[in-house]
Amino acid sequence: MTGSIIAEDYGRLIVQGADRPGIVSRVSTVLAHHGANVVALDQSTSDPSGGRFFQRTVFHLPGLGAKLAELDQALEDELSGELGLTFRLVEARRRKRVAILVSRADHCLLDLLWRRRRDELHLTVPMVISNHPDLGDDVRGFGIPFFHVPVEKNDKAAAEKEHLNLLKGNVDLVVLARYMQIVSGDFLAEVGVPVINIHHSFLPAFVGAGPYQRAKDRGVKLVGATAHYVTEDLDEGPIIEQDVIRVSHHESAQDLQRKGADVERLVLSRAVAWHCDDRVIRDGNSTIVF
Amino acid sequence: MTGSIIAEDYGRLIVQGADRPGIVSRVSTVLAHHGANVVALDQSTSDPSGGRFFQRTVFHLPGLGAKLAELDQALEDELSGELGLTFRLVEARRRKRVAILVSRADHCLLDLLWRRRRDELHLTVPMVISNHPDLGDDVRGFGIPFFHVPVEKNDKAAAEKEHLNLLKGNVDLVVLARYMQIVSGDFLAEVGVPVINIHHSFLPAFVGAGPYQRAKDRGVKLVGATAHYVTEDLDEGPIIEQDVIRVSHHESAQDLQRKGADVERLVLSRAVAWHCDDRVIRDGNSTIVF
Amino acid sequence: MTGSIIAEDYGRLIVQGADRPGIVSRVSTVLAHHGANVVALDQSTSDPSGGRFFQRTVFHLPGLGAKLAELDQALEDELSGELGLTFRLVEARRRKRVAILVSRADHCLLDLLWRRRRDELHLTVPMVISNHPDLGDDVRGFGIPFFHVPVEKNDKAAAEKEHLNLLKGNVDLVVLARYMQIVSGDFLAEVGVPVINIHHSFLPAFVGAGPYQRAKDRGVKLVGATAHYVTEDLDEGPIIEQDVIRVSHHESAQDLQRKGADVERLVLSRAVAWHCDDRVIRDGNSTIVF
Amino acid sequence: MTGSIIAEDYGRLIVQGADRPGIVSRVSTVLAHHGANVVALDQSTSDPSGGRFFQRTVFHLPGLGAKLAELDQALEDELSGELGLTFRLVEARRRKRVAILVSRADHCLLDLLWRRRRDELHLTVPMVISNHPDLGDDVRGFGIPFFHVPVEKNDKAAAEKEHLNLLKGNVDLVVLARYMQIVSGDFLAEVGVPVINIHHSFLPAFVGAGPYQRAKDRGVKLVGATAHYVTEDLDEGPIIEQDVIRVSHHESAQDLQRKGADVERLVLSRAVAWHCDDRVIRDGNSTIVF
Repeated sequence: MTGSIIAEDYGRLIVQGADRPGIVSRVSTVLAHHGANVVALDQSTSDPSGGRFFQRTVFHLPGLGAKLAELDQALEDELSGELGLTFRLVEARRRKRVAILVSRADHCLLDLLWRRRRDELHLTVPMVISNHPDLGDDVRGFGIPFFHVPVEKNDKAAAEKEHLNLLKGNVDLVVLARYMQIVSGDFLAEVGVPVINIHHSFLPAFVGAGPYQRAKDRGVKLVGATAHYVTEDLDEGPIIEQDVIRVSHHESAQDLQRKGADVERLVLSRAVAWHCDDRVIRDGNSTIVF
Repeated sequence: MTGSIIAEDYGRLIVQGADRPGIVSRVSTVLAHHGANVVALDQSTSDPSGGRFFQRTVFHLPGLGAKLAELDQALEDELSGELGLTFRLVEARRRKRVAILVSRADHCLLDLLWRRRRDELHLTVPMVISNHPDLGDDVRGFGIPFFHVPVEKNDKAAAEKEHLNLLKGNVDLVVLARYMQIVSGDFLAEVGVPVINIHHSFLPAFVGAGPYQRAKDRGVKLVGATAHYVTEDLDEGPIIEQDVIRVSHHESAQDLQRKGADVERLVLSRAVAWHCDDRVIRDGNSTIVF
Repeated sequence: MTGSIIAEDYGRLIVQGADRPGIVSRVSTVLAHHGANVVALDQSTSDPSGGRFFQRTVFHLPGLGAKLAELDQALEDELSGELGLTFRLVEARRRKRVAILVSRADHCLLDLLWRRRRDELHLTVPMVISNHPDLGDDVRGFGIPFFHVPVEKNDKAAAEKEHLNLLKGNVDLVVLARYMQIVSGDFLAEVGVPVINIHHSFLPAFVGAGPYQRAKDRGVKLVGATAHYVTEDLDEGPIIEQDVIRVSHHESAQDLQRKGADVERLVLSRAVAWHCDDRVIRDGNSTIVF
Repeated sequence: MTGSIIAEDYGRLIVQGADRPGIVSRVSTVLAHHGANVVALDQSTSDPSGGRFFQRTVFHLPGLGAKLAELDQALEDELSGELGLTFRLVEARRRKRVAILVSRADHCLLDLLWRRRRDELHLTVPMVISNHPDLGDDVRGFGIPFFHVPVEKNDKAAAEKEHLNLLKGNVDLVVLARYMQIVSGDFLAEVGVPVINIHHSFLPAFVGAGPYQRAKDRGVKLVGATAHYVTEDLDEGPIIEQDVIRVSHHESAQDLQRKGADVERLVLSRAVAWHCDDRVIRDGNSTIVF
């Protein structure tokens, strides 16, 4: 994995599709013909014979902004037709717009906002939405708009409609930073951008609610957290990142929860950073993380 | 956790039962009256009010061997009556006798035998039993008897009977070091000593067979292993130790299996070492590991 | 290690000194005679024969506040005379007063203040002192006084005098949370409370300034952080806690610094939490961490 | 990092040199023209402007064995002239020949031999050389020649001469698996293949002898190990891999040594595996590990 490059005139190209000989050569030749210098390239195949092809390339091209459309067209011509590949071309300097949804727990939210402020995360946060008012002051203290959208038990659809009004067209990513509401398949289809969630266990262990108490009851020696893309199947979406921390029999379920919170915020921050750096490629229900 | 003390004249005392004020004082007073010097003591309570009490004490008592029976009786008098506590008093220098059951995979077996040879594990291995002949030469190369007991699909009871003939009275612990057969509740009841198993996943994730392929399919970022006491409920016994290792999308299920094998042997070795050092106390379906 | 117990009527007793038989018994007997129930006890000896003795005991005693002086006297009578032990008796509910010194980097400071706010750290922060004004708004946003004390290169003594005026009698611990000034031996002697520092490397590797660039130049595969008590010998004081994180050749010195910052704040938070829970006992230039 | 591919008809190409635009394109075009399909590619630059270029490519080419010389020539023509790059082309199925030098400690040696036997390490071990006779039986039990070459204090050159007689032309790599003798610059120059050493500390901490006792004295909370290429500057060669394990104040220097041994063998095994998979590229006194 390469350190993130976000300077002017750097671009990222993500290519995926059915593998066949010569793709790397054709991609890099298009880039070279446009004067781009590849500075980092990761390529992988799910299976050497008949597998799926994945490639992430970071390149330097003086005057990239003005040449982006032309390069995009050249790649389209080379990759989309006969080869049937899909690709994504982005300017590295462009920050992704990330909305954060949160309930009452502040640890994941604050960690993201601090890292943003410290410029560790190359993104903007145009809004934070919560079903509770509690974290409004904290969020606004960072100069970020905070919207309180209560969720009524028997009318969740109303809240989701309000969410969509706020989000659509305004964001490139939605992050559920300990947002304790299930989002519907309709919402996912409508919002039109990826949604990342942090789950407070090492999935697939302790799927669902109350994982720390269940971990305590089961006597496990490590607790963990999982960041994943949200799909209609709760807690089943493609995993982006996971980590764990050691716990002991001395510790209560509440102690586990506190330790777990440290893992949650680290895992979510990494997942968001990698997504915003275009390192994560979905491959069915799994992910490639370059 | 204290480093293991296995010298002459050192003893270990494990006490457990319903908590009430004054237990530590009464235990340490009995020890002091017999001239024992406490060199390490760990004590813990599941709940300060009305919880379960656990204590492990390592002490030095010159001439311990000759005084053991008397000390045992004094502890019985002080702890078993009104207080209703159970306790276990052992000489630290006494090695536990450990039988290893294994199938074809050699990594856990070899790690245990090699650690035994370099005296990292304070135990003896009176026998290794396998349902396959493959590892006989390796085992006998360590000077340890190897018994090949084939398991017929429709007569597992016959094999277990032979196991019991070999084991009963001869061992203090049975270790399933990647033994790919289910042991019956009857066997567990008959054998009369604890049985430790190594499971090739981070339980409760990927309970059962084929965990590495399933981990690969699920796209998890860490694979693990779990050492636990065997109970009638498969993969559900009290967990002694767990650990994990990071994996990436590049790696095949076979790669995961190889990495997992490193975790398996470390986790099993630790669990066996701690058990033999009387550090592990069962508490319902969980464990205290001092 | 036990989870922290901070409720009413719980006390902690730390005992240390030359080891000899019977100390545990005498300590626990004094506690039992006063009606205290031991809920957690860790004891350790540097050497079974002629070593140094260390014990941390957590106990429950209804009405502890009113009985503290009497219990203290009883312990004094039992432990200080013939046995020559030193001890420390504290009420668990009493929060230690912790001053934080900081320069410009905010990650360690914010982590401590935020953990304090969510009551993960059982302490109060009566003041933050900085040689730069930058973090004043953040600190005051937590409702904590912020004092800007510039440090002139050729008159550091003046700044230290001002520090002492602010600190003396008002705090139980000073934390250097990335405070980029050397504190003098005179200051340490005068301030009269322990001082904890976070060093941005895995000591003793990369002692001194610029550790991340030097780690990069040396091609190390892990970067770390170390929390230690401050002594006159720079970077040489007793280590409380250390941890590391994996880095790769792809990452720049700045990337290492960012990853290292995550380790720094975790390591410092743990060290401060353990100190405030009376888990850390200095033993020469090392520490016992129960 | 990709899982190792060692099948027939797979090749690896390592390219390094001064960076300039178009290298990736030219390399992949040569491969494509010869009918090779790239299955994994890692590329990195030390600095986007004027840095050093590193690339590792795994490709599939039916009939590779017969086409190797021709492909090598084509790469030579394309890369060595104007571009001034160096490259290495190897068949993945070809096992590197690895000699192991060892003294008395067996843990690193046995771990390598077991992994070799289990086919986890894709290499052959044509010989083991030791300055002590102790491990002869173990080595020969694996069917591997063992040579006992005593080292006289005042005539080390004689031993090194004997080593060279045994090694020259017969091996592709020499591994010092806890070989407790310093090898001379003359030996390194003469032997003509890389030499990997395992150092029993987290370098640059505790350079030199007795690291575990020094770690204990310093009160560190983690002990580690470092695998590095051997250069004339003792303990200063390019680091390939490092790892650490947590230790506590309870543990003696001997306990640290035992825990450290587990880290040593894992770290050395990884370093050898990566070297044999052509993943490690030396870059001055550092390494790129793809």
